[in-house]
Amino acid sequence: LPRIITLLTDFGVESTYPAQMKGVIMGRCPEAAIVDLSHGVPKHDVHTAAFMLSSAAQAFPAGTIHVAVVDPQVGSQRRALAAECGGSFYVAPDNGLLTLVAYGQSLFGLECPPARIVSIENRTFFRADVSGTFHGRDIFAPVAAALACGTPVDELGPPVDEIERFDLPLPTHAGDLVSAHVVNVDSFGNLTTNVAARMLAGADPAGIQVHVGGAVVRGLSRAYSDVPAGVLLAYIGSAGLLEVAVNRQSAAVRLGAAVGTPVYLRMPAQP
Amino acid sequence: LPRIITLLTDFGVESTYPAQMKGVIMGRCPEAAIVDLSHGVPKHDVHTAAFMLSSAAQAFPAGTIHVAVVDPQVGSQRRALAAECGGSFYVAPDNGLLTLVAYGQSLFGLECPPARIVSIENRTFFRADVSGTFHGRDIFAPVAAALACGTPVDELGPPVDEIERFDLPLPTHAGDLVSAHVVNVDSFGNLTTNVAARMLAGADPAGIQVHVGGAVVRGLSRAYSDVPAGVLLAYIGSAGLLEVAVNRQSAAVRLGAAVGTPVYLRMPAQP
Amino acid sequence: LPRIITLLTDFGVESTYPAQMKGVIMGRCPEAAIVDLSHGVPKHDVHTAAFMLSSAAQAFPAGTIHVAVVDPQVGSQRRALAAECGGSFYVAPDNGLLTLVAYGQSLFGLECPPARIVSIENRTFFRADVSGTFHGRDIFAPVAAALACGTPVDELGPPVDEIERFDLPLPTHAGDLVSAHVVNVDSFGNLTTNVAARMLAGADPAGIQVHVGGAVVRGLSRAYSDVPAGVLLAYIGSAGLLEVAVNRQSAAVRLGAAVGTPVYLRMPAQP
Repeated sequence: LPRIITLLTDFGVESTYPAQMKGVIMGRCPEAAIVDLSHGVPKHDVHTAAFMLSSAAQAFPAGTIHVAVVDPQVGSQRRALAAECGGSFYVAPDNGLLTLVAYGQSLFGLECPPARIVSIENRTFFRADVSGTFHGRDIFAPVAAALACGTPVDELGPPVDEIERFDLPLPTHAGDLVSAHVVNVDSFGNLTTNVAARMLAGADPAGIQVHVGGAVVRGLSRAYSDVPAGVLLAYIGSAGLLEVAVNRQSAAVRLGAAVGTPVYLRMPAQP
Repeated sequence: LPRIITLLTDFGVESTYPAQMKGVIMGRCPEAAIVDLSHGVPKHDVHTAAFMLSSAAQAFPAGTIHVAVVDPQVGSQRRALAAECGGSFYVAPDNGLLTLVAYGQSLFGLECPPARIVSIENRTFFRADVSGTFHGRDIFAPVAAALACGTPVDELGPPVDEIERFDLPLPTHAGDLVSAHVVNVDSFGNLTTNVAARMLAGADPAGIQVHVGGAVVRGLSRAYSDVPAGVLLAYIGSAGLLEVAVNRQSAAVRLGAAVGTPVYLRMPAQP
Repeated sequence: LPRIITLLTDFGVESTYPAQMKGVIMGRCPEAAIVDLSHGVPKHDVHTAAFMLSSAAQAFPAGTIHVAVVDPQVGSQRRALAAECGGSFYVAPDNGLLTLVAYGQSLFGLECPPARIVSIENRTFFRADVSGTFHGRDIFAPVAAALACGTPVDELGPPVDEIERFDLPLPTHAGDLVSAHVVNVDSFGNLTTNVAARMLAGADPAGIQVHVGGAVVRGLSRAYSDVPAGVLLAYIGSAGLLEVAVNRQSAAVRLGAAVGTPVYLRMPAQP
């Protein structure tokens, strides 16, 4: 079966840079199937990119090669990484982008353990001329093409033990109070929090209270239309994380919320 | 030949949601060719989505599977539909999205009659875990993959007789006066009306008057450059419908027009 | 190997027009691999499209068919062109879009000589019904499909000697002063100039001064992070042209610069 390569960048949806990466891949591994994860990562926002990567990669079959390029340090001494995890591959600069993939198991279910990561150093797989500003095209794309056409990860460079990472966005508990925050806002204005579904196990769904932006949502819904249009709801979203939305409107606008906005939960135990 | 699957959603061009649908499809029917119709449908705007679907689907070969997900009622009791029409397939929530495909023959030439539509109920084809908020990924994508890899429509669920529909946007006639309206505004600001080319048969092209936004256009042009830059023109557009544009500028801005803006035609008979 | 077809248009990233071109191509040459170069060309901006085409096409393998549709004169007597250059193909309206491909060798390295260009006139390869407003779908797409599936360029129409072109954006020299300008602004706000890397051969990199928007940058950097965040730098960009950027910020915003903004260089000879 042909290998899938996904691309996630902050290049912008109108840029030709993603196409240039595709041209390089297609010239080296024409049988790879290339899919855009998104090119709308906020510029230089490694945290958001890490979230988008972890949540979207779950929908792809094993063997997929996920290339993520949010790379303000391009051309510096920062390393380039390739990781093999659960049969899939991740290629990215060593700037924290792989934090959730490698260490976020408590948030997402399918990530790899932080093992079998190499520093991409074998220039055999690079383009002949490597620019100082576009390693997406000159290093990450051809390396992904090599992986897609059968090169083992080990040939890309030496194994590494530690990678750059940011503090995991995990909620803190104090009795029945959970302090969390918004980790993503989607295009509908729905707010994704760092509260995993499994953290709610044992709680009474009807008794959960979610406090965010001065509002309180009581109980968990299952679908937007469980509440009237314009009304707030909380639910387990499609990434397996607690979300807050307004049916047919934007919760981000309604609550003035953004990435980082605090979210507090009260979770009475199942009666 | 591999089957084509098109995707039309209101998820936004920067979202990873379309990619998640693709990941599911590629995991289940790798030989399908996936094409984005658009992910820029205005949020929850079923009418605009229905127009975009009907006008764009015409360019695809028979056998294509068109998946349209504008689905504010996701997770509720609203049905999911699969329709086979003229050898092509349409997969969408039952919320009016298929109105023009099923009933819009008087506007577009290639739609199917409202027959051979099923309610998607056979969970064999769903993802193992169906979320309450993302049936695009969990139901519509895997069902489209099943169709692309040979599952007959009949296996998806029982046939349905009536589907949700909105009133067809048809113009009304009174003598030589036609009352119509704008049904779409494209990215150039060109205005598409609900007047089909065939409704103008028998009229004198040079004598047609189009009234919109306080302006009058006399006669039909064939190309934008038939008039000087900055001048209004009317013509039969690429979807087979009457359009109004300004050469090299935006008619929507010039006329303050939007979807729903009234358009009046006077059509003297061929002399 | 399957042929690659790239699409560059000003249709907008939310439009269904690019999908309609793809539907036509897939119906006629299903084995072609279609890639979006960009659909975000500013409306009717042939100069920017020509730059995007020339810079992005370099990343694709020989044999690729590049289709560029920025076409305000669609439906008029303007010709449609197909060019074969260095084993690759370019399909576009005759409005200057191919200026850099055909004549820009002094800026980019890989363009073709201005030879083997035909006027697309053989209606055998057109769609049955050619609209007056969407030749991207009705002429350029099916012609690209024909090329991808083996039709020789010569069968498309008669050879042409002269094509529409704009003045090449070449810098002028006066002693050690070079007068140049900005030819593109990318989504990061980085400024690409019309100064090719080879024009700097013989100059002392540390001694080069770049004047733009009231600021002066001294010396060439190799990577954004060679300077602190918020600081201006100049470097040879990924298209082989001199660029000016601000590390982690937008040079366009900082300097109030846009396409056309003058850039002056002082280039002392290598000591």
